[in-house]
Amino acid sequence: MEYLHGGDIYRNNVKYDFSVNVNPLGMPEGAYEALIKGIKNSCVYPDPYCERLRGAIEKNKGIKSEYIIMGNGAAELIYGMCQGLKIKKALIPVPTFTEYERAVKSAGGVCEFYGLKEGEDFKIKNDITDHIGPHIDMVFICNPNNPTGNVVNKELLIRIAEKCEKNNVYLCIDECFLPFCENEKNISMLNEIEKYENIIVLRAFTKIYAMAGLRLGYCVTKNSNTRNKIRNVIQPWNVSSLAQIAGCAVFNDKDHIIKTLSLVNSERDFVINEMKKGLVKKVYNSKANYIFFKDNKELGSKFKEEGILIRDCSDFRNLEKGYYRICIKKHNENRELLNILKKIKEV
Amino acid sequence: MEYLHGGDIYRNNVKYDFSVNVNPLGMPEGAYEALIKGIKNSCVYPDPYCERLRGAIEKNKGIKSEYIIMGNGAAELIYGMCQGLKIKKALIPVPTFTEYERAVKSAGGVCEFYGLKEGEDFKIKNDITDHIGPHIDMVFICNPNNPTGNVVNKELLIRIAEKCEKNNVYLCIDECFLPFCENEKNISMLNEIEKYENIIVLRAFTKIYAMAGLRLGYCVTKNSNTRNKIRNVIQPWNVSSLAQIAGCAVFNDKDHIIKTLSLVNSERDFVINEMKKGLVKKVYNSKANYIFFKDNKELGSKFKEEGILIRDCSDFRNLEKGYYRICIKKHNENRELLNILKKIKEV
Repeated sequence: MEYLHGGDIYRNNVKYDFSVNVNPLGMPEGAYEALIKGIKNSCVYPDPYCERLRGAIEKNKGIKSEYIIMGNGAAELIYGMCQGLKIKKALIPVPTFTEYERAVKSAGGVCEFYGLKEGEDFKIKNDITDHIGPHIDMVFICNPNNPTGNVVNKELLIRIAEKCEKNNVYLCIDECFLPFCENEKNISMLNEIEKYENIIVLRAFTKIYAMAGLRLGYCVTKNSNTRNKIRNVIQPWNVSSLAQIAGCAVFNDKDHIIKTLSLVNSERDFVINEMKKGLVKKVYNSKANYIFFKDNKELGSKFKEEGILIRDCSDFRNLEKGYYRICIKKHNENRELLNILKKIKEV
Repeated sequence: MEYLHGGDIYRNNVKYDFSVNVNPLGMPEGAYEALIKGIKNSCVYPDPYCERLRGAIEKNKGIKSEYIIMGNGAAELIYGMCQGLKIKKALIPVPTFTEYERAVKSAGGVCEFYGLKEGEDFKIKNDITDHIGPHIDMVFICNPNNPTGNVVNKELLIRIAEKCEKNNVYLCIDECFLPFCENEKNISMLNEIEKYENIIVLRAFTKIYAMAGLRLGYCVTKNSNTRNKIRNVIQPWNVSSLAQIAGCAVFNDKDHIIKTLSLVNSERDFVINEMKKGLVKKVYNSKANYIFFKDNKELGSKFKEEGILIRDCSDFRNLEKGYYRICIKKHNENRELLNILKKIKEV
């Protein structure tokens, strides 16, 4: 069993890990404090209903708490959807997050791939709706897409949603990285959730609140039948009490998100602009907290020799060797990455 | 969706919760310390392979690390087994832990029940092997059984295992409460794991190390094909980094288990002996860290009025109203429970 995602910090000597996409500012301070206080209650079973946490999300995000299923990270819910909704055929634009395909297979399903084209900067085009029909059980849209950083605009999302609704196809919109985008609220399908029976929006605390180790995510759908089917394939105590406590604490610190967006935006521009000065073969215009680019096949291993992990994207379907993804970190770290890149390229 | 397990401390005003069966001494001190140190790394993805933790289990329990799959609590692995191994028909002695049945159903399977008889003190008898045949995909044996506290002896376990092996039936032995039993090593099927392709032994940190809120369990089988099938239906990052850190820390504190066994044994004898003085209708001789008994239908709600939750077992298959389970706590708490019981019964 091999998991090829971010770099393997557990079996490599790593100075900087640019291969995973979590908030460079870490967790909000209040979450750390809540965790320290919460440790003494680790011997008590977590609330299987996550009532307080779902209430906090309702209060802060305006999503009805009964529409929410909490997960042990968003990844658990991807598996829960495919298994609970018995997905036999899924439409997946590729390259994208590889767990969708693995989860579909885990449910005994197969995938139909909508190949994103290099010549179109790997963007989803209007013709995606031609591929949606009654033979498909679920469409996955990662927005912004991992690893490309492309955003699907609201107009196209609505057209996809309408086509899914007409053909009784589930539509999973994975918005795990959307909170890093400046115009999050305009792009999010959370605002449209009341209009569609078949939409499931996926969200994570993992990325924007840097809780990758704690594991916390959720999905949202108005359809109670869908929620029951997903919930039925998941154990009752799937979200640890520490994850629930930390999740409740993040909403007290609105500043953290403002600081995060400011940092990610300016640093993304900085790194992309530097890279565009001939440092790599091609750099794509990401809207997320990571940057997708193309260069020599050996770049990943050269970075590794310098103690830096970047994401080699060659295991993504529809990508060959030479594509990479790096996350945005703090300025000094980004500068060091660029310096090493310059050293490798002997610029 | 309703989960009827231990008492619901999140939606009740509770002074003492006797409805959940975790170690009354809590986590080993070293686990608390490890958690406090570990919090700062919560933003880093957990090791999907749990390499350090499986290594620690190998070193301390003598189980080959490659035989181990770690879970977000043992409950996740029950679902993983049923879904990954596509269990269509399971044999389950009842009453027992209700998640087996729910997990079998989640995989689209059905259950055949081996009804334990009140007149035989709910003990599994030799004739259970008559019910095992090629029409069964998996047999669940909870040892000691929850809620009765009965232990199946090694001789019968071997006979069950042989019958399963002959008929190519998976055998899940749930030993989550076995570390509370004095003769754990003689009863455990972990020692027999090399002999059988079809045995899966389930273990938890949740109970014996009081990590219910953290979520940590594992299953063990020599069959790599079985392991792959289970692992394939579970997300890569299922075990939080804090659970992994705490799990590694428990083995430094051997004293904790010795103290636990000493407390649980003497307190179980104390409570059972007191109950036998006519306090309840019937008390069973549990070998675990909980006590199963029979009394009036109203006892549970009367305890609740006093701020004490006990486990009403009426939702267990094959049990009617009037059966209860209480866990063993520290002496003063057990004494208070008995005092309130005396007050309720006006003794």
